[in-house]
Amino acid sequence: MISFRTAGVDFARLATDLEHEILNDIPITRTMQLRIAQADGDRIALAAPLAPNVNDKGCAFGGSLASVLTLAGWALLVLRMRAAGQECEVYVQDSHLKYLAPVWGDFFAEAQLADGESWEAFFAALASRGKGRLRVVASVAGSDGAPATTLEARFVALRAKAA
Amino acid sequence: MISFRTAGVDFARLATDLEHEILNDIPITRTMQLRIAQADGDRIALAAPLAPNVNDKGCAFGGSLASVLTLAGWALLVLRMRAAGQECEVYVQDSHLKYLAPVWGDFFAEAQLADGESWEAFFAALASRGKGRLRVVASVAGSDGAPATTLEARFVALRAKAA
Repeated sequence: MISFRTAGVDFARLATDLEHEILNDIPITRTMQLRIAQADGDRIALAAPLAPNVNDKGCAFGGSLASVLTLAGWALLVLRMRAAGQECEVYVQDSHLKYLAPVWGDFFAEAQLADGESWEAFFAALASRGKGRLRVVASVAGSDGAPATTLEARFVALRAKAA
Repeated sequence: MISFRTAGVDFARLATDLEHEILNDIPITRTMQLRIAQADGDRIALAAPLAPNVNDKGCAFGGSLASVLTLAGWALLVLRMRAAGQECEVYVQDSHLKYLAPVWGDFFAEAQLADGESWEAFFAALASRGKGRLRVVASVAGSDGAPATTLEARFVALRAKAA
């Protein structure tokens, strides 16, 4: 776990807790050997080894890439909301994936907000309507460092109802 | 395995062979307990049980849905080409997924060509240029029978080089 604190929030601890929850609640992620490699309030990197995620051609299976990229976007939102003291249900609504080049080794999926998106507007919508939407971009780099698989996805967060 | 023969081609046998290859070559599909439930030359249905593919909310994990939908499209092309006596490498190039409603049970991903696509044009391109592209649509139905998750994806097939 590589991480650092931002504005008094211990993202390393939040990320460790979330990683445990993911691995506990989503059994397929245990087979994928998913882990949260890095996290702060604005970016997150999820990692997975090639071996359990390999396909028939010896490179990373597109389904594993899609899974890890989507989870990276989902985890980005969950962590940022927890850092702000908010517990919400977060759902992916749609996603667009581009498979640009094969991925021949262990991989990282790095996610951040898409251009034009703002945490401030998101939290304002969540406060006023109990619902907020955000677009996220994420990518897995190939061995040359260029994006090999990219995702753009839209997520919705619903604030848990007060008891 | 529910299947039937078309124009003398035994799709049940082709599908059984392909299912074995997928489960053997892509380890994550064994955890998903993927199987080919139905196949003819124009449609294919892949099936997976909920339990190994569940998420933190108790419904199907988006990554598993994306995986099974993408594999359904991929398998549709591979089977149809094998039925035509062609062995190619098939890759997904890009995909667009919509998560419309949660999937609360075991699920099927059904794939077919997108509107406007033609096997004839695809095979002609493969014959003349050694490369063909096809767009595929696939969906997983929810418990009410309406599409709960949909995929539109573009695949490319490359004919194996002659020795």
